[in-house]
Amino acid sequence: MSASPARIAAGIPETNCSLFWRIDFNCGDPVAIVELPRVDRVRSVLIVRDIEMERARKTARVDQVVCPADFAPSDGLSGDRETATAQAAAECLRRAGVTRVAGHRSTPLIFAEMLRRAGIELDCELDLWVHERRQKTAAEVELLRESQRVTEEVMRLACERIARAEVRRDGVLIHEGVPLTSEAMRAAIDHWLLDRGFMNLPSIVAGGPAGADCHDRGHGELRTGEPVIVDIFPRSHATRYWGDCTRTVVNGEIPPELAKMHAAVCSAKAAATAATRAGVTGEAVHLATKQAILAAGYHMGLPAEDAPLSYCAMTHGTGHGVGLDVHEPPLLDLRGPELLVGDALTIEPGLYRRDLGGVRVEDMVIVTADGCINLNTLPEGLNWR
Amino acid sequence: MSASPARIAAGIPETNCSLFWRIDFNCGDPVAIVELPRVDRVRSVLIVRDIEMERARKTARVDQVVCPADFAPSDGLSGDRETATAQAAAECLRRAGVTRVAGHRSTPLIFAEMLRRAGIELDCELDLWVHERRQKTAAEVELLRESQRVTEEVMRLACERIARAEVRRDGVLIHEGVPLTSEAMRAAIDHWLLDRGFMNLPSIVAGGPAGADCHDRGHGELRTGEPVIVDIFPRSHATRYWGDCTRTVVNGEIPPELAKMHAAVCSAKAAATAATRAGVTGEAVHLATKQAILAAGYHMGLPAEDAPLSYCAMTHGTGHGVGLDVHEPPLLDLRGPELLVGDALTIEPGLYRRDLGGVRVEDMVIVTADGCINLNTLPEGLNWR
Repeated sequence: MSASPARIAAGIPETNCSLFWRIDFNCGDPVAIVELPRVDRVRSVLIVRDIEMERARKTARVDQVVCPADFAPSDGLSGDRETATAQAAAECLRRAGVTRVAGHRSTPLIFAEMLRRAGIELDCELDLWVHERRQKTAAEVELLRESQRVTEEVMRLACERIARAEVRRDGVLIHEGVPLTSEAMRAAIDHWLLDRGFMNLPSIVAGGPAGADCHDRGHGELRTGEPVIVDIFPRSHATRYWGDCTRTVVNGEIPPELAKMHAAVCSAKAAATAATRAGVTGEAVHLATKQAILAAGYHMGLPAEDAPLSYCAMTHGTGHGVGLDVHEPPLLDLRGPELLVGDALTIEPGLYRRDLGGVRVEDMVIVTADGCINLNTLPEGLNWR
Repeated sequence: MSASPARIAAGIPETNCSLFWRIDFNCGDPVAIVELPRVDRVRSVLIVRDIEMERARKTARVDQVVCPADFAPSDGLSGDRETATAQAAAECLRRAGVTRVAGHRSTPLIFAEMLRRAGIELDCELDLWVHERRQKTAAEVELLRESQRVTEEVMRLACERIARAEVRRDGVLIHEGVPLTSEAMRAAIDHWLLDRGFMNLPSIVAGGPAGADCHDRGHGELRTGEPVIVDIFPRSHATRYWGDCTRTVVNGEIPPELAKMHAAVCSAKAAATAATRAGVTGEAVHLATKQAILAAGYHMGLPAEDAPLSYCAMTHGTGHGVGLDVHEPPLLDLRGPELLVGDALTIEPGLYRRDLGGVRVEDMVIVTADGCINLNTLPEGLNWR
């Protein structure tokens, strides 16, 4: 008997990156991956819809590619594609004599239901592929480096455009004769990235008070003397790995309070980066951030209901894992787990004041045995003239 | 006692459209929706990460918005965001005295695991929200109509550019002095859509033999006298509803065999559309397509291994549901279920020959009591000069 259990993982690889990671095959329809332990090795079966089989056989990293009709149960397949895939996965396991299977944590409940109907017990294997996905290979690090390089290029373009814009008498920024808005800046970023094969969720270009909500995308005219948070996280169509970078830029003279907030954020980023190495917890890295923020005289945590508009705090964790998902384990935050060699992390402290706006600076790092490698090369200052 | 069970649904609204549909709130991190039956009504609770609470309270369609820390179990929350959300959902149900809960079919297995640990049984409610999502409201139909209108506009642009391109001596199409490739056409489509607020997965612009694989995106130079399948399926960033439209265009003279294939495809589309109404099954609609294809002398099904390259067949179903997902129930295919008033469907017969390429024409329709409404207004011919 092999020690490894039979396993199942299922969903849509286009949105479930653990599936894509496991099989290196993308499609927009439901699939199931079944791993059957044999005496000497595990045999893997990929169930895809029939018209995807030829493409899957060429590239998917599995031993066998089948379609639901190959494992139709005796009472017939459903006319619903996800249900039929679940039925076929259960039938595949049943024919292999499996009565108990370990499931990936993302497995949809309908697969549990079809397994139950086939008399197969399903356990959740909480850690399946979690550490393996976290520990990026050298090849994956290069893909992240390339995504981050492209992200930095367009970041420079955006920050320089904002910094070098002309200023209308009322403070509104003017680029090529028209007001420079968050929307226009975002569109320029998107078009530039599209030409380089990157898909881009709406970037954050949040000027002034809009920047105080760390997930506000920003809207309307940008103004001189205000902080503009630019947070760009594009995904390569070809490799599927994400970049993720934030800089904050001020057009014109930098108000002293913003310079002070920015200095605190940069010292927090330096402290967090210095604390990052394998074996340290994500919580410890966040506490390094917290210490730097508090030492600079700022707060941690969302404002209380009666807090003044000038309450200035870091309102989120220090960072998150990044790879095939833009947010993936581990978190650099309270209760964050021990870091592993190969973890790819964002380090992104920020300070937010509802009357002034926000300042955030974000790099991407790769964890090593004794520290981390910073994939960023951009300057981190507020002045991009 | 209320007759409705306690319910749970969970995942990431950005990719799990059933969640977005239920709460009308989008975010890229895990959430859980818990419905607790009360004497007179169901009370719904949305669990989101803390920094999303303020935004969720403004717009999410639920009774209460909380974060995992509000329902921390006695042994503490995990530092993993998805695990913590699952723990909090279980604790929320436990505190409400629930011992058995019905789950949406998409609920990830880790939620089942955390419920199990809290002593709560989880059943799969197979049909939860399935019919409700299928039956589009009048407002949703207008959103689909608008997405399809934009899709048709860019489809016209693409087909006209291909049809009107100059032809180099070797048959390659030339647009503005350079060869017109699938990639260049796709890029033009993408930029055009981006300017209109649409996100676009890579469109299919498949010329000649590439078009014979109905999911090949197409690559390289387009040529005169060959069919080019253009299949565009963009999603509105603002509404999240998809368009989905296919036309096939030939630059120059149309070879008689392509004209014959195209006539068969159009007659199949007409037959399928005429067969579509509430109460008819998706299978019956597909059989209407099949009958028209066979009557024209073509085949149904993927080619056998020894089939000649001139084997010409329809290799996929007639169509699929569309809405917040670009592929959603029901299928117009074998075993497809009974259609409902408000189903939004693509009707997209195609014929494929490995030596010539493919011809596919796709419209979007809304099912009514006695037929269907076609949202398309574009011509369906091969000639776009």
